[in-house]
Amino acid sequence: MTHFNENQLSEMPTRQRAQFINSLSGFKSANLVGTIDNAGQTNLAMISSVVHLGASPALMGFIVRPNTVTRHTLENIEQTNQYTINQVNSSIWQQAHQTSARYDKSQSEFSETGLSPFYIAGVSAPFVAESELKYSLELQQIIPIELNGTLFVIGKITNVICNTSVIKQDGYIDIEAIDTVAISGLDSYHQTQRLSRLSYAKPESMTQQIPLDGM
Amino acid sequence: MTHFNENQLSEMPTRQRAQFINSLSGFKSANLVGTIDNAGQTNLAMISSVVHLGASPALMGFIVRPNTVTRHTLENIEQTNQYTINQVNSSIWQQAHQTSARYDKSQSEFSETGLSPFYIAGVSAPFVAESELKYSLELQQIIPIELNGTLFVIGKITNVICNTSVIKQDGYIDIEAIDTVAISGLDSYHQTQRLSRLSYAKPESMTQQIPLDGM
Repeated sequence: MTHFNENQLSEMPTRQRAQFINSLSGFKSANLVGTIDNAGQTNLAMISSVVHLGASPALMGFIVRPNTVTRHTLENIEQTNQYTINQVNSSIWQQAHQTSARYDKSQSEFSETGLSPFYIAGVSAPFVAESELKYSLELQQIIPIELNGTLFVIGKITNVICNTSVIKQDGYIDIEAIDTVAISGLDSYHQTQRLSRLSYAKPESMTQQIPLDGM
Repeated sequence: MTHFNENQLSEMPTRQRAQFINSLSGFKSANLVGTIDNAGQTNLAMISSVVHLGASPALMGFIVRPNTVTRHTLENIEQTNQYTINQVNSSIWQQAHQTSARYDKSQSEFSETGLSPFYIAGVSAPFVAESELKYSLELQQIIPIELNGTLFVIGKITNVICNTSVIKQDGYIDIEAIDTVAISGLDSYHQTQRLSRLSYAKPESMTQQIPLDGM
């Protein structure tokens, strides 16, 4: 085991440090954020920072950096207050990654990467038809993180579209069964293999493996 | 595919909704946060919301809810300004989950779950010896999220301890090779199998699979 101190970290070349530091958080979620502007131009952006904030109300957050490739996503959310989050699966992971290319505002990542927009009544933002688990959100708050100029975008979940066959009796969704992928670092994609679900941990006894359907 | 609208989501029983909504963000990182209070009492907490904020400065964030099982973690970070984040691997995933039991403040999750504290000079907070990739942080900011009473804890990475054999030439760390696990929902643990790394996406050509060592 090697120890890198703060000086050694800051002396790493920029790109190497980006790869290194991006590997430290562990596996990341792989999601496509779908938006549309007031003129009807759609956008799709790969986001690896979607994080669960709470179930009641149902809130989800993600980090964006303004003035980067995700700027159109941010502008569209600010215009319409709506967006969708679409889990990336092993049928579309390469197309999903391709959405991170710096396309012009007039180009839609849907047509450029061959993914299909899908709409429901009451939601202007496009879903990704090829995603097996997707939901729409209404913007609640954008929190500026002054430490590094990023923004924490928080939305409330308004609609969920999912294959019911992978929803277990206790509410758990078997996202492995719909081939949702995980990301490590900036560019590595992974399928998963379940070790087990574990019972709710209590101080007096060791947690046990439980069947996929819960207890 | 079934469509759940906002009314249907809010009518789900509380526990079922928690399982359901927790499944929506995709795969989550599995990390143990190590802390110590001023009296020398250690604490270890399973956190699935660690998220990369930026590489320069190297910032990491996670979400905590005050007055829950993670309250001691929060109190200790506020007392000492220091904490460690330790990736959970497939040798310690059950012990890691067990740290989420509601132990008393006088009980250390290290001894209760059989994990070993590990210290380095200059960092008061304990690392997890059994973790193959771990780092210390200095608290930078705690942002209250008023929408649901959670807190976003942001720290700067000060030291990284890692097996150099899994650090690739371009800085990417092969966290699959050190058996880091991922979480889905509240209690499902997963090993991973790499699909591939992908090249930096450009508008004029489709991203390509690249070898593990980068290009």
